[in-house]
Amino acid sequence: MKGRGDYDPATFRPLTFFDAVPRFIEALDTPRRYLERCLENIEAREPVVRAWAALNLAGAREAADAATRRYAQGAPLSPIDGMPIGIKDLFETRDMPTQMGCEAYAGNQTGRDAPVVRALREAGAVVLGKTVTTELGMSHPGPTTNPFNPRHTPGGSSSGSGAAVGAGMVPAAIGSQVGGSIIRPASYCANHALKPTLGALNRGERLGLSQAVLGTHAGCPEDMWLVAIEVARRTGGDPGYPGLFGPFETPQPVRPQRLIVMETESWKSVDSASHEAFARLLAQLGEQGVEVVRRSDSLLVESFEQSIAQAKAICGAISSYELRWSTRELEERHPGKVSARMLARMHGGQALGIDGYRLRLQQREEARRRQAAVAPLADAMISLSSPGPAPEWLGDVPGQPLAATPTGDYGFNAATSMLGAPAVSVPLLAVNGMPLGVQIVGQPHEDARAVGIARWMAAALQPVRIDA
Amino acid sequence: MKGRGDYDPATFRPLTFFDAVPRFIEALDTPRRYLERCLENIEAREPVVRAWAALNLAGAREAADAATRRYAQGAPLSPIDGMPIGIKDLFETRDMPTQMGCEAYAGNQTGRDAPVVRALREAGAVVLGKTVTTELGMSHPGPTTNPFNPRHTPGGSSSGSGAAVGAGMVPAAIGSQVGGSIIRPASYCANHALKPTLGALNRGERLGLSQAVLGTHAGCPEDMWLVAIEVARRTGGDPGYPGLFGPFETPQPVRPQRLIVMETESWKSVDSASHEAFARLLAQLGEQGVEVVRRSDSLLVESFEQSIAQAKAICGAISSYELRWSTRELEERHPGKVSARMLARMHGGQALGIDGYRLRLQQREEARRRQAAVAPLADAMISLSSPGPAPEWLGDVPGQPLAATPTGDYGFNAATSMLGAPAVSVPLLAVNGMPLGVQIVGQPHEDARAVGIARWMAAALQPVRIDA
Repeated sequence: MKGRGDYDPATFRPLTFFDAVPRFIEALDTPRRYLERCLENIEAREPVVRAWAALNLAGAREAADAATRRYAQGAPLSPIDGMPIGIKDLFETRDMPTQMGCEAYAGNQTGRDAPVVRALREAGAVVLGKTVTTELGMSHPGPTTNPFNPRHTPGGSSSGSGAAVGAGMVPAAIGSQVGGSIIRPASYCANHALKPTLGALNRGERLGLSQAVLGTHAGCPEDMWLVAIEVARRTGGDPGYPGLFGPFETPQPVRPQRLIVMETESWKSVDSASHEAFARLLAQLGEQGVEVVRRSDSLLVESFEQSIAQAKAICGAISSYELRWSTRELEERHPGKVSARMLARMHGGQALGIDGYRLRLQQREEARRRQAAVAPLADAMISLSSPGPAPEWLGDVPGQPLAATPTGDYGFNAATSMLGAPAVSVPLLAVNGMPLGVQIVGQPHEDARAVGIARWMAAALQPVRIDA
Repeated sequence: MKGRGDYDPATFRPLTFFDAVPRFIEALDTPRRYLERCLENIEAREPVVRAWAALNLAGAREAADAATRRYAQGAPLSPIDGMPIGIKDLFETRDMPTQMGCEAYAGNQTGRDAPVVRALREAGAVVLGKTVTTELGMSHPGPTTNPFNPRHTPGGSSSGSGAAVGAGMVPAAIGSQVGGSIIRPASYCANHALKPTLGALNRGERLGLSQAVLGTHAGCPEDMWLVAIEVARRTGGDPGYPGLFGPFETPQPVRPQRLIVMETESWKSVDSASHEAFARLLAQLGEQGVEVVRRSDSLLVESFEQSIAQAKAICGAISSYELRWSTRELEERHPGKVSARMLARMHGGQALGIDGYRLRLQQREEARRRQAAVAPLADAMISLSSPGPAPEWLGDVPGQPLAATPTGDYGFNAATSMLGAPAVSVPLLAVNGMPLGVQIVGQPHEDARAVGIARWMAAALQPVRIDA
């Protein structure tokens, strides 16, 4: 079974929460029982998947009991009251350590809740645990494995959030993306996921990266959206940003008239099976009356593609430069406890210099202008969420150079990260028994429209399975 | 002498550093001796001025000795090698506590250097101590008094930085501004000060406020600029911003052809003596051939003024909203250790809500557009740095409502803060023996031009002294 997984989109049943709520209301089920089912699944699968950096079982049971009482009284706090949820371990929780996948932060207890965590608690959600992140949200991987084949990466940096949701351990989890950190693991782990518009969800004080954004992983579009909007209505967005726009219910499915295919620089890296899967999906769109616009159809689209043709280099340079100070301080305070991958990134950032950084910002700005210029041409853009399913990852080989992309290629994600544009991943494809996502990319602040289109696709299209 | 101070701009001799450097090079003086003179002055004046939250005398002497050795070897690290400097206590230093003027942070030792501190050390500067800030950089005052009359406020929030420089304890200090926190204390304490373009100097991870910016207080334009540019060339700006632009030497004096008078909402609050002082300064500009453009001369200027007519309300709303989460967490973790002023601000932020915040951001954006629209009309804008000299401040009266503006009115500063525009304060006026600054306001990223104009004014105009 090398290179193959046990994922079949036709039979895969993700864990969902929104459809359990009516049963809570009718007293046919309770949040406490829902939580216990999650815990059973965690107990069964965690030894192999290793999605969790920390769990607070007692706190979760207490929160689930409180939610159970609220439903019994007919007074839930929100549509996600009682939902068990995982928090990427970059974000602070007052009851659990925040270790950021970095030895230098081992046992780090801040005693604080990040705004997103606090908002979730205020909405009644059950903050069950911290999900594994790659080191400091960058490329050095953690222990998590892909839930559909443990020899493969779950993707990063929101590795544990993607895997926990893919394994049905929780119905939703919080992730964050600077380069490819939400949509890539979502693609590899069969999640629905929303990387919203830049600044849409308040990151608290973890703001050292100019294009990082919080987002949601879930088993279905409803839970994905409801978590995001319930957080946003309580925390708003990052300082200086207007925050997530959209309705308090999940946006209705919307059939688009026209979609632009966004190729990105990784189009040429797509394996033939994944290519075929995507082509069949586009063919279904055509049958449904959706017009597909390609870069060869429009000089504006071509010009947009050119502006994102170096997106990985731009994202990498920007984040390396922005991280150089905090990484250097961390390494000096905790010698030997920051990975060689991270230190190489820091040195790259120092070498870039301010002029190089300014040029990258200018290129980013130009790409944003060119995305705005294609807005009138279509309802949204569509692309793969990753160049193929999760690659194999068995760890670095001692004595060999460090693997360049242990958590996979982020070429389909760097562009949207740099654009600050909303991206919604939908698990519609399977290649050799491993999931592969398709993403809808909107104009900034059109998150709800992108979700509506993604939701329509999930309902109207047949999942495509290719076995090469 | 109630309400009067001992400041006379004709005789006041600020402490400067740039002109000591040639003497270090010629071995006529050393950084260690320079530091000892600063320490003598601190010993003499600190009991009344109370500018310092912490001092590291041993560390400073060690750093000054190292600088002394470098000059002896003919190898100083930068033009500010050996300069004793104060750091506003909002920013982390690995060798001193970071208490932020807030009881909840009493004794807070993070062991880290903020990027600005690290950059200063790399440039050879002598990080002498932490200067008093109002609580969390907002309105609740610390113990610092005005160096020209201890019954008066030094201004805030960079109270200690303004006062330490005004008292000649150090030639320069780091401040920061969200509303009026650099330019107001500079005005009250006879500093030259630069509040640069938004994002110009890297704030590290203290990024929770969308319009906060780091800047410099100094005894002369040279030290003010050199500190800023030496920091910028090492740290760059905030994430997503291109950082401070300008030459590595102090910008040459530039006589402007035309200056727009920026009135702001506080124009009507200017006392008659300060009004007269400013009018005499404008008359001198006229004699020097500088054309002065007023709001009545141009509909574009009038339209700009209208867009900043509520600047205080806009700044206050934006920062209150942005601080609501961190303040709430702080108060919950340290009950009773956050001031009533700060808690009132937090409640205001919560009451504002996301829609109110979005409206304020929109108003801020509109003001920025209107500032850009007046760019072709003049070289820069000119205004008072505060509506008058420092008001009296003897502390809150038990049993009475809290004073609304214990550190003075920031109506002449809220506009530039919200615009993200560079402002340079020049100590050119005196009213009743207390200093009053004049500020030059540039278009964003034209910091060097604003400094050149300010420098020309300091050299070409006669200080104006009014005794009412």
